Amino acid sequence: MFSDLINRRVILVNRPKGVPDADHFAVDEMSVRDLEAGEFLVKTEYWSVDPAMRGWVNDAPNYLPPVEIGAVMRSFATGEVVASRNRDYAEGDKLSGMFGWQRYAISDGSDVDRKIDDTDLPSSLALGVLGLNGVTAYFGLLECCEPRAGETVVVSTAAGAVGSAVGQIAKIKGCRTVGITSSAEKMALCRDSFGYDAVINYREEDVAAAVRAACPDGVDCYFDNTCGPISDGVMTCLAKGARITICGTAALTDWDPIPQGPRVHRQLLVARARMQGFLVLDHKDRYPEAIAVLADWVRDGKLAYNEHVLEGAESARGAIEMLYQGKNTGKLLVHVD
Amino acid sequence: MFSDLINRRVILVNRPKGVPDADHFAVDEMSVRDLEAGEFLVKTEYWSVDPAMRGWVNDAPNYLPPVEIGAVMRSFATGEVVASRNRDYAEGDKLSGMFGWQRYAISDGSDVDRKIDDTDLPSSLALGVLGLNGVTAYFGLLECCEPRAGETVVVSTAAGAVGSAVGQIAKIKGCRTVGITSSAEKMALCRDSFGYDAVINYREEDVAAAVRAACPDGVDCYFDNTCGPISDGVMTCLAKGARITICGTAALTDWDPIPQGPRVHRQLLVARARMQGFLVLDHKDRYPEAIAVLADWVRDGKLAYNEHVLEGAESARGAIEMLYQGKNTGKLLVHVD
Repeated sequence: MFSDLINRRVILVNRPKGVPDADHFAVDEMSVRDLEAGEFLVKTEYWSVDPAMRGWVNDAPNYLPPVEIGAVMRSFATGEVVASRNRDYAEGDKLSGMFGWQRYAISDGSDVDRKIDDTDLPSSLALGVLGLNGVTAYFGLLECCEPRAGETVVVSTAAGAVGSAVGQIAKIKGCRTVGITSSAEKMALCRDSFGYDAVINYREEDVAAAVRAACPDGVDCYFDNTCGPISDGVMTCLAKGARITICGTAALTDWDPIPQGPRVHRQLLVARARMQGFLVLDHKDRYPEAIAVLADWVRDGKLAYNEHVLEGAESARGAIEMLYQGKNTGKLLVHVD
Repeated sequence: MFSDLINRRVILVNRPKGVPDADHFAVDEMSVRDLEAGEFLVKTEYWSVDPAMRGWVNDAPNYLPPVEIGAVMRSFATGEVVASRNRDYAEGDKLSGMFGWQRYAISDGSDVDRKIDDTDLPSSLALGVLGLNGVTAYFGLLECCEPRAGETVVVSTAAGAVGSAVGQIAKIKGCRTVGITSSAEKMALCRDSFGYDAVINYREEDVAAAVRAACPDGVDCYFDNTCGPISDGVMTCLAKGARITICGTAALTDWDPIPQGPRVHRQLLVARARMQGFLVLDHKDRYPEAIAVLADWVRDGKLAYNEHVLEGAESARGAIEMLYQGKNTGKLLVHVD
């Protein structure tokens, strides 16, 4: 049936400790097998590159089992149904889901995130501001940080796919926002595109001193994607009753053994603060609610986004490393054609 | 008016780094001045010795300003009104409040915690299970940990004034309880008096391994008074959605500079767990509600307590050190006569 289709795939060829680089992946080609009843074939268009993918390839306790050696790299992707033996999915349907870094994915629907029906907006947004990044920002900020108008919200990786949405949602909710990022270029993005009230370059400033200067009444909410020295600085400036979302741990590439750092207990106690781990997958039932709101904010010009698109399967191999080096500006995607 | 009354006081004579010992305090004697309008005189009976007192004498950020050198040591105490120029307080009233380590305290009512009207029970309980310790256990467990029936609750300093109440309240709420303590004697107390389902001696066992064995489904709630190596062990065994109350930091005697320890971020993230600093003073408006419930549990024999009473003002000087060395069994009090 699909003897003419060649599936270009990016597979994990050996297991990294920490951040995987291009040598941990290889591109191969496979033919596409026939569909069984209930299955459909998705031709992918955009592959997502996310910080969580580091955890998926490491052999350490995580919320998902590690990707096996020789298997297609797990990832979110967008694509279009090109053949179907499933009544819920028709040829031409545009989908996002956990299709992996491969040109053709066979699905039974269980790995589908959603049908992309907001067709007035670019389909790649389903991997970014209208996908897990946006939904992560939405629930991670609103459910864990519970920001109130007038409060000060600090965001690490402030120009990133999640952070930029967090900062903008906090502004929409009436908060003062302080972004922490890594370069003059990203500082400008934070100010000009994402509306932060203050921006800190953690590579050039003492984070604790800079946060203290930017937040004279202390930090009410901290949305953290780093969990390293940036966090250590922010944690010295908590306001009473502060709420901290632990969304990612990008600053620390190896969690085995557990790295040492300043103990947070007394800071939490003195501030009566709350620190909470957040995983967006726990909120899956409520994605549509968040995406509808986010899409309206995009349409209204209240929620800006930035994409950084790599071209072709080969470029995926070094993409996770690139993300951890902070070399991307905006949501990192691989486009395949 | 009070020329015949001699006030024996325990004053702070120099500032410790970390835990104060007997040399940081001295006992002196002062005459008692006359009352002004609105004031009343309290003759104290029991003085409290609490972990928080370490923080009150250190010159570091805290929720209260540090006790000044030369001033009476801040503490909770019980006593009786022996003279009054305040219409709300009459001679013979029994009170608990922040009267300090002194035989006679002049109060305007602002430092009163409550009138002790549950006179069927010993008045010393107002400093323990029917005072801040009990109320700390009550709100710290129920509000921050939010234990549900069938869950596993781990308690550090399990035989202590707060911990023993936490364990028992968790049992009343239908939880399985695991206590962590420091000696065979305290282990027996935990089992026989406080009803723990499992008990760990952190001085003789590997805490992480012992918690894992005692909590095969992971730790749902952790009420922590230590924040040191005991916590580090428990944190490796969190169940999904775990809640951690940071109530005290007894294991670490010096927070300046902030001590290093294993970073908790990834553990919180993987478990989607929540760690929250708790200060009982924030719940002051609701003390009566908690005390009424706790007193009924004491009357019904569901809530046991243990007191360790030192005699006389001189014995107070070394009491905080004794507490941090874990040499007391039960709520540590100083009785003055």
